[in-house]
Amino acid sequence: MAVATQSLEQLCINSIRFLAIDAVQKANSGHPGLPMGAAPMAFVLWDRFMQFNPKNPTWFNRDRFVLSAGHGCMLLYSLLHLTGYDSVPLDEIKQFRQWDSKTPGHPENHVTSGIEVTTGPLGQGIANAVGLALAEAHLAATFNKPDCQLVDHYTYVIMGDGCNMEGISGEACSLAGHWGLGKLIAFYDDNHISIDGHTDISFTEDVAARFEAYGWHVQHVTDGNTDLEGIAAAIQKAKEVTDKPSLIKVTTIIGYGSPNKADTHDVHGAALGKDEVQATREHLGWEYPEFEIPEDALNHFRKAIDKGATAEQEWNKTLDQYKSKYPQEAATFERMLSGKLPEGWADALPKYTPESKADATRNQSGATLNALASVLPELIGGSADLAPSNKTLLKGLGDFQKGSYQNRNVRFGVREHGMGAICNGIARHGSGLIPYGATFLVFTDYMRNSIRLSALAETGVIWVMTHDSIALGEDGPTHQPVEHIMSLRAIPQLIVIRPADGNETSGAYKVAVEKAKAAHPAATLLAFSRQNLPNLEGSSIDVVAKGAYILSDNSDGTPDIILIGTGGETYQCVEAAVKLREEGKKVRVVSMPSWELFEEQDAAYKESVFPKGVKKRLAVEAGISLGWCRYVTDEGATISVDTFGASAPGEVVLEKFGFTVDNIVAQAKALLG
Amino acid sequence: MAVATQSLEQLCINSIRFLAIDAVQKANSGHPGLPMGAAPMAFVLWDRFMQFNPKNPTWFNRDRFVLSAGHGCMLLYSLLHLTGYDSVPLDEIKQFRQWDSKTPGHPENHVTSGIEVTTGPLGQGIANAVGLALAEAHLAATFNKPDCQLVDHYTYVIMGDGCNMEGISGEACSLAGHWGLGKLIAFYDDNHISIDGHTDISFTEDVAARFEAYGWHVQHVTDGNTDLEGIAAAIQKAKEVTDKPSLIKVTTIIGYGSPNKADTHDVHGAALGKDEVQATREHLGWEYPEFEIPEDALNHFRKAIDKGATAEQEWNKTLDQYKSKYPQEAATFERMLSGKLPEGWADALPKYTPESKADATRNQSGATLNALASVLPELIGGSADLAPSNKTLLKGLGDFQKGSYQNRNVRFGVREHGMGAICNGIARHGSGLIPYGATFLVFTDYMRNSIRLSALAETGVIWVMTHDSIALGEDGPTHQPVEHIMSLRAIPQLIVIRPADGNETSGAYKVAVEKAKAAHPAATLLAFSRQNLPNLEGSSIDVVAKGAYILSDNSDGTPDIILIGTGGETYQCVEAAVKLREEGKKVRVVSMPSWELFEEQDAAYKESVFPKGVKKRLAVEAGISLGWCRYVTDEGATISVDTFGASAPGEVVLEKFGFTVDNIVAQAKALLG
Repeated sequence: MAVATQSLEQLCINSIRFLAIDAVQKANSGHPGLPMGAAPMAFVLWDRFMQFNPKNPTWFNRDRFVLSAGHGCMLLYSLLHLTGYDSVPLDEIKQFRQWDSKTPGHPENHVTSGIEVTTGPLGQGIANAVGLALAEAHLAATFNKPDCQLVDHYTYVIMGDGCNMEGISGEACSLAGHWGLGKLIAFYDDNHISIDGHTDISFTEDVAARFEAYGWHVQHVTDGNTDLEGIAAAIQKAKEVTDKPSLIKVTTIIGYGSPNKADTHDVHGAALGKDEVQATREHLGWEYPEFEIPEDALNHFRKAIDKGATAEQEWNKTLDQYKSKYPQEAATFERMLSGKLPEGWADALPKYTPESKADATRNQSGATLNALASVLPELIGGSADLAPSNKTLLKGLGDFQKGSYQNRNVRFGVREHGMGAICNGIARHGSGLIPYGATFLVFTDYMRNSIRLSALAETGVIWVMTHDSIALGEDGPTHQPVEHIMSLRAIPQLIVIRPADGNETSGAYKVAVEKAKAAHPAATLLAFSRQNLPNLEGSSIDVVAKGAYILSDNSDGTPDIILIGTGGETYQCVEAAVKLREEGKKVRVVSMPSWELFEEQDAAYKESVFPKGVKKRLAVEAGISLGWCRYVTDEGATISVDTFGASAPGEVVLEKFGFTVDNIVAQAKALLG
Repeated sequence: MAVATQSLEQLCINSIRFLAIDAVQKANSGHPGLPMGAAPMAFVLWDRFMQFNPKNPTWFNRDRFVLSAGHGCMLLYSLLHLTGYDSVPLDEIKQFRQWDSKTPGHPENHVTSGIEVTTGPLGQGIANAVGLALAEAHLAATFNKPDCQLVDHYTYVIMGDGCNMEGISGEACSLAGHWGLGKLIAFYDDNHISIDGHTDISFTEDVAARFEAYGWHVQHVTDGNTDLEGIAAAIQKAKEVTDKPSLIKVTTIIGYGSPNKADTHDVHGAALGKDEVQATREHLGWEYPEFEIPEDALNHFRKAIDKGATAEQEWNKTLDQYKSKYPQEAATFERMLSGKLPEGWADALPKYTPESKADATRNQSGATLNALASVLPELIGGSADLAPSNKTLLKGLGDFQKGSYQNRNVRFGVREHGMGAICNGIARHGSGLIPYGATFLVFTDYMRNSIRLSALAETGVIWVMTHDSIALGEDGPTHQPVEHIMSLRAIPQLIVIRPADGNETSGAYKVAVEKAKAAHPAATLLAFSRQNLPNLEGSSIDVVAKGAYILSDNSDGTPDIILIGTGGETYQCVEAAVKLREEGKKVRVVSMPSWELFEEQDAAYKESVFPKGVKKRLAVEAGISLGWCRYVTDEGATISVDTFGASAPGEVVLEKFGFTVDNIVAQAKALLG
């Protein structure tokens, strides 16, 4: 194909391709196949349909684009560069996959402006996209007025075979179909190739039929390599279907343009190699050297800047009209977008005294969610089919469903991993929404990657986990968390809080909400009990932010022993301390709802709680001992659960595993010698 | 309905129901709804179709039954009791959900004979069942002869809405359809109720159409409460479809028989309550008191004993014929069933010297798998679409596919969680098969619950995880494990091994294979490097079983400092020791491939490796520091990764994060003061 006959569109599409090819080649690492094969559909989408402002990546009413096949991120980086995003100048393209670049090996939203969500692990992106579309539908139903369509944008996704094989995508797409999210449009890059080879090897289901079974509108573009008009027509049609999400299956050739490697798994995840790069240049008639973009193409792409500026200006006019006609709603809208919390919101947090009735912290969590829902219209979420058990229903606020998108109770069904990624998407919509997702603590195992990504990608989500230990009783070892709290503490940046009573529950939510709205949002995971617990003397809402604090101490600052409790075991430490003090011991009781928050404190505070000189420490937590040596020192001990649990009434299990006041007293005395 | 008009079948079905109702009521805990609703289909299946011997729960050629909706386990316990399994006498029914009973809250295969797989977490069971059916198909293709059908049994599953919502079930069922597992028959208990309420709330997809899209044969029994002949006809038809797995959607009423609670989510997971139990008795005309089974019904159920004995005797004749006609195959078959390994199998393990070429342990893992495959015909497994990266292909042995079930390479596609549960099912088939499942270590996050269940349920699987640290480089933080090794060590009973070189890799597999075949099988997880590593002086195959061992020590037994390395960081410790010794230090280098194996050693051995008196210890592992205080003591330190990783070439990342010989030397000196 001689250069002279390349249409402007082909020039543009090949510009995308060759930036990707060259970047991967220079890094000698990366995935050229998808960018090469999906460039046509991505170009048609970005060129003709997507609304966005390259100079304002956080413009509220932009269309969202998600590359669920995150390994193909050179496709996305190329588009960001070509259309004029400041975050991806050519130098960053050249630094693809190098230390400290803005173009890491898989797209990271907290690193590169213009990236909506962090993808890479397959299936996450399409599920995030369902969350982004949910957010748009919710905000539209909440704020739009018949004469003022403030919220009106689409969510587009490109996903491949890999995403389609992952269970998480089925969960999220089933929900998207149930919810009728008509402004979600997904492109299925149907290239029949995955790492192992041709998809005939393991993936022969009828994907289109499956999506129809989910209630999606499905189309098929049979030549995704050259039929640009076909792609465009499908997108147009998809936009016209307003009551169902749309899947556009686009059949492509992976690595399109590479004469020797196209349509093979070799081109999926390795650089083409110098020779094949050259062969591809010849094959596609590309005479431009490494990283050079033809001026015509670049100028065309850069029209996005003016186009985007104009779109944003138009929308600003709509916003102005909205503000003048609907000042109250506009104030809420703007506050949410600003990231600020409403004045005095924390006053709504329930407060307790030791005289307040003993209650399970899962109930107190439910009360707190409901209290917060009334002052924080941005709070939205639900459970993976355990709302009555997790106590996460926002009473009287209705369910988010077709026809009632303004409601804030989200019914995820038994789909933990999908829920996780959907919540991440809601948070990443950037409109100040605070999503919460709930299940049993043990089932964090089903959604660990979504939780991890929330921590990695500065995504302000609140994970609400109940039934947090063997104390849950009869459901037995498959349901009783043992290693979970500690293994979640192990996830960098995730803030894990295990409240001991009502005040700590309120305090945990205070932290969680503040972290969700921070300049660099953080994800918080809260763990709650199934069993009733008394409210403790000395607990308070505000002290939770310190992570660990002294509940009581009858010494002059140097106790004989420190008892450390978390969650449901803290009150037992309190009671054990009473007995030990009756025997003349000087005992400090520390409640330690959160390791991460404690580690944020300065050295002086940490020393004041755990003085170096006091080495006899007993930690009591109905979970594994692994890791506790950090706080109990070599001379300390723990009462732990280091085996799987057992099916029996909760009190029996706790007793058999040694979680009794008497045993705490006995172990403390053993330490004291 | 007066007692006199109850058919024998109704008597039997209600016997199942009332044992469940009474057991849950006595425990005041449990799930009566499913047993009440699914009793008819379960009865027809067990009474008319299933082949099993209650007095020999491990008879090889039995049909396998899986209750994927594991919360409904009183259904299963009732059937086991009624048909005459010794593991569930009436007393155990009465001890449902009590400490130390054989009837825990969710079925546990290692506790109760007759339970094939441990279920409870939704979606696991149906995926296990795919594994059981895979095993049958594989063994049939491997051993059967035209004149001797030694292997010939069905796998039946009951699953509900919850299992169907879970992504893991979609993954496994897509594979089952791809593989055409014609002897897998799944009942979908279609009762429209889940914990949150009616499935209209969140689950409105066309499940039947989805299964057809997977390539399943689908039928619908519209009245699963009373149309026993319809259920039977569907099972018969399903059995006749030999090239596709079958789904029988059976519409039922949850809690059928309860006049006030049937068809509500209240009857899903709570005891009926005294009054409703009585009302149900009246409604169904059940005049028998608590736990009493009518004699006619019990006699009918107990016919299963003779029926089963006869079936087993017939099969034994087949086995005898097989042994006389095909002695070689029979010998292998019997050896596999016996749980014994072939004589001298471990001689096949590759051995290395320090002169052997440096190599990535993932490559050495691949070499070991291939070596073992040639001596262990029971080894079968694969990767979740990462075979070229995980190096898990058994060369020349072909893929397990329709028409070639005898092959041992299993192509799971991008379906980690499904792979996990399928592997568990293969192991639990009880025929001595040793399954392995592989992906990137970071994606254990996608399949953690299956891994946990393998550890809980004494399931001899080998988890093969490669790309085990930040050293993998450019793929970046979403792909770089940081907390994974430690969080997997956190799972009780799971044996985690991170080999440092070729010998340790072979040693790891030796342990893994032995553990898979132990009287109480254990699951092992192996973590391998992407990067090349030298083979170490002092390593050996056999020493891995000790978990940690001294690689070198220039002291007389009391070194100044101990360097502890695992996996890819061990050789760096070795090199650092050389430098420190040049400066006159007495340095011990310990390689610690496995914490769990080390903890199995006696106190004397442990003391010999880590003498109490030597407190200056530096652990070097490219993972989190959490937990290492156990081995490095308060006076020790670690070189760790306590943040997410970064996208850059692997050597750069390692260096930036401090994993260099020079840094180890520096940190060691800082410790030495």
